[in-house]
Amino acid sequence: MATTETNAPAATGDPRPTAYAELTGLLRETAVLASASATLAWDQETMMPPAGAALRADQLSALTALVHERRTSPRVAELLAECEADASLAADEVVAANLREIRRGYELATRLPTSLVREIAETSSKALEAWRDARERDDFAAFAPWLEKVVGLNRSKAECYGVPEGGEPYDALLDEFEPGMTSAEVRGVFDALRAGLAPLIADIAGASRRPDQRLARVPVPATTQSELARRVLERIGFDLRAGRLDVSTHPFCEGLGPGDTRLTTRYADEGFVDGLVSALHEAGHGMYEQGLPKAEHFGQPIAESASLGIHESQSRLWENMVGRSRPFWEWALPEARRVVGSALDGVDVEEAYGFLNTVDPGLIRVEADEATYNLHIMLRFDVERGMLGGDLPVRDLPGVWNERVKQDLGIEVPDDRRGCLQDIHWSLGALAYFPTYTLGNLYAAQLWEAVRAALPGLDDRMREGDFTPLLGWLRENVHRHGRRFTAPELCRRATGKPLSPEPLLRYLEGKLRPLYGI
Amino acid sequence: MATTETNAPAATGDPRPTAYAELTGLLRETAVLASASATLAWDQETMMPPAGAALRADQLSALTALVHERRTSPRVAELLAECEADASLAADEVVAANLREIRRGYELATRLPTSLVREIAETSSKALEAWRDARERDDFAAFAPWLEKVVGLNRSKAECYGVPEGGEPYDALLDEFEPGMTSAEVRGVFDALRAGLAPLIADIAGASRRPDQRLARVPVPATTQSELARRVLERIGFDLRAGRLDVSTHPFCEGLGPGDTRLTTRYADEGFVDGLVSALHEAGHGMYEQGLPKAEHFGQPIAESASLGIHESQSRLWENMVGRSRPFWEWALPEARRVVGSALDGVDVEEAYGFLNTVDPGLIRVEADEATYNLHIMLRFDVERGMLGGDLPVRDLPGVWNERVKQDLGIEVPDDRRGCLQDIHWSLGALAYFPTYTLGNLYAAQLWEAVRAALPGLDDRMREGDFTPLLGWLRENVHRHGRRFTAPELCRRATGKPLSPEPLLRYLEGKLRPLYGI
Repeated sequence: MATTETNAPAATGDPRPTAYAELTGLLRETAVLASASATLAWDQETMMPPAGAALRADQLSALTALVHERRTSPRVAELLAECEADASLAADEVVAANLREIRRGYELATRLPTSLVREIAETSSKALEAWRDARERDDFAAFAPWLEKVVGLNRSKAECYGVPEGGEPYDALLDEFEPGMTSAEVRGVFDALRAGLAPLIADIAGASRRPDQRLARVPVPATTQSELARRVLERIGFDLRAGRLDVSTHPFCEGLGPGDTRLTTRYADEGFVDGLVSALHEAGHGMYEQGLPKAEHFGQPIAESASLGIHESQSRLWENMVGRSRPFWEWALPEARRVVGSALDGVDVEEAYGFLNTVDPGLIRVEADEATYNLHIMLRFDVERGMLGGDLPVRDLPGVWNERVKQDLGIEVPDDRRGCLQDIHWSLGALAYFPTYTLGNLYAAQLWEAVRAALPGLDDRMREGDFTPLLGWLRENVHRHGRRFTAPELCRRATGKPLSPEPLLRYLEGKLRPLYGI
Repeated sequence: MATTETNAPAATGDPRPTAYAELTGLLRETAVLASASATLAWDQETMMPPAGAALRADQLSALTALVHERRTSPRVAELLAECEADASLAADEVVAANLREIRRGYELATRLPTSLVREIAETSSKALEAWRDARERDDFAAFAPWLEKVVGLNRSKAECYGVPEGGEPYDALLDEFEPGMTSAEVRGVFDALRAGLAPLIADIAGASRRPDQRLARVPVPATTQSELARRVLERIGFDLRAGRLDVSTHPFCEGLGPGDTRLTTRYADEGFVDGLVSALHEAGHGMYEQGLPKAEHFGQPIAESASLGIHESQSRLWENMVGRSRPFWEWALPEARRVVGSALDGVDVEEAYGFLNTVDPGLIRVEADEATYNLHIMLRFDVERGMLGGDLPVRDLPGVWNERVKQDLGIEVPDDRRGCLQDIHWSLGALAYFPTYTLGNLYAAQLWEAVRAALPGLDDRMREGDFTPLLGWLRENVHRHGRRFTAPELCRRATGKPLSPEPLLRYLEGKLRPLYGI
């Protein structure tokens, strides 16, 4: 497609800025302020000295208010309405996508009454404190009233957003994180995935073969791990001249804006593989950010990711499909040996591959392996919908949770700390966020099948440490589109098919059955 | 003094905020935005990836505009006038100082017409480029038109600010950096200092004794230098829980706000002393920032430094009076040996002391020693006044410069790169900034005499690595006052005397004559 909105307004010959040009100009100014705020948030997690916390809170709250004021300004509404009334603009696909998404963002930002926004903010900050304390003391009863309040506020939020016809309240919340996806669709895909995973996980549990876990204990200094991660990131295509890699307690990726994407990871004292795999995960997010069309379209929806699920698909693809594959380690292990030295003596690709693909059902989501991880998510998806719809009273949550873990993972939950109190998300007020993680795994596997079909020599290239064909395919089929299409539509265009559980099941089956000899 | 403005407004019993409370509230909000901007500026020099430069420029310019808009808002003028009319406020010393300085800042920010502000900004950015190029090619003629323009703009600026009665245009410019000081006073002190320095430097030039320079070449890895600098900073009293130490091309200190003061230094490949002394210099700035009354008064002038000269006095005191002293090195050398290891074998305190106090007249200001440094400054002070007053045509600058260097330092200037093109300041549009460096040296020496008189056991405490009495005295007599007094008044209060060249001359004589055996 040759036309872009840069051409469209110029064609009118009017020297005054068109409504569309003024609108995108305002959005760019707002994005610049939001990116300043994001830089401060990054600094807070990585650089800020402890005593700077109070000032930082004031800075962030001042900038958040300025950004919100600009996003919800009446002038945006006027310009947007003017553009929507101009039929000529709809002809340009980029402009049309921008207008659709600017409208969506404006409604999300303005439909909630200020009183509700304030109540959500106040509740979250208190609920977070209550959750930290309740988890520490393993006291679900102390957190339950807060969770009830969070659920209630999310119900109000869903009402304000409006439940789509034939949908359920959960859809209204899901739309914030995963636009274009309904909970009925998610349920359909999740149910099929669960049905396929159960026998695989059961068979693995009964297998007699177990991968060696020695790599968990190889001691590698943090500076060496950092050096290795940096080399690997550079090779896979994360541009360190337009980004950074640092250390933080919880790894994250922050795309600050054009030319500045920052990743963090963490390095364990024992074992170097987790730190590297976590860096690969964040670099997957980071290369997506670097591939979005921000240079031209910063501030416009078209320069943003399609959804959280698609964002997560990029991190999971590099972490799992690449970073836990044999071809990758055929290149990466000699590289690691050069950096790490004798600590890796005697380790071969098969050992690394086995270690990285160990399936071991456990209580904690964030420590789960590629196969069982999705069961943790489906559990959360189901209890969230139950609580929101009222079928699951909050007080019954621990019982339902523990029974489901027993049923799906075959383990007893010894306490709520390692059960329904383990995640931070609800205490932050976020319901309907969890499914985007498994949607990420599903999209990743489906994209992976498509890219392998399109690039038959991919494994050989990876063995040589050449990741350009893979990154090129992702740039072309995913990154450059930004938010032009909804996630389901992007999936159809990139893979030729609607989202399906089959590719992820095929991928896990094809990897884990041979590994475990089942 | 027990009363503060926090009490004053409450005494009215009126539930509406008083004009003074509203005014300081507005100033605080503005300071929060300015501190966000300062954090981004720090990031730019230390962390930002190269490709992030364009976005950063946009962020900084957006925040600068917001800060300027708030600083010059009509509401500030209204509230300020209301406060000034309220005689009861003048009774509180802090409030009175704040009002005096808020007025001064408001005038500085509003007296220049927008067109002049824009012309200065545009000229500086082009002059900077022209200077870089001219210095590179050693082509003064190419920079001369830009310097003429900068001088002309500074003349206009001085007119807008208004030349004080009996003063000269330079006074109006000096007031921006060193409020309360006139160029006549500076000239008086500088002339006496020059008269005293000349024979000392001549005698040193004729001395047969020369300090050993071996320490310039001791190789110490940057990570080790950083570890040592951190230990020393912690010991002298820079609070690393409320600050950081990083690396940048040009060392600096940025006091971002309460609880967050950030220093940078640089580490040479050969020699570790320069990096440490530069860290001490920045920590001197940093401890001043940490000692200002920001916790209560952030955003108010009272929480700011008295002047650039006083700020520089704090850095020079720790760098020179402490960091180049025997008692300091009696503590620091064993400490350095513990961190650095065998590279320091055979080095004793006398060798370190001699090396650190070497006097060696040279062409470059930033590489100059403690004694000759001031001659570089006085040269700049004189030619700046000449150019501004019109007595020195810009085209004659190189000739005048070179003759003066020959006369003062006894060396031929081989080219303008190492002559009148060496400094960045003029290309940034700043005239009248240079004298604050030597004012810093003068204030430092005068404070040093006062603190030594007040704390007779100071040397012994430093030998033990105990710097708390010294820092305590500076906190009490300098830091906590912020901008309550002008710099000359602060000097009188802390030392009992007006600023004089004698303490610096006594300090240099007392150190250098014995060292050089003259």
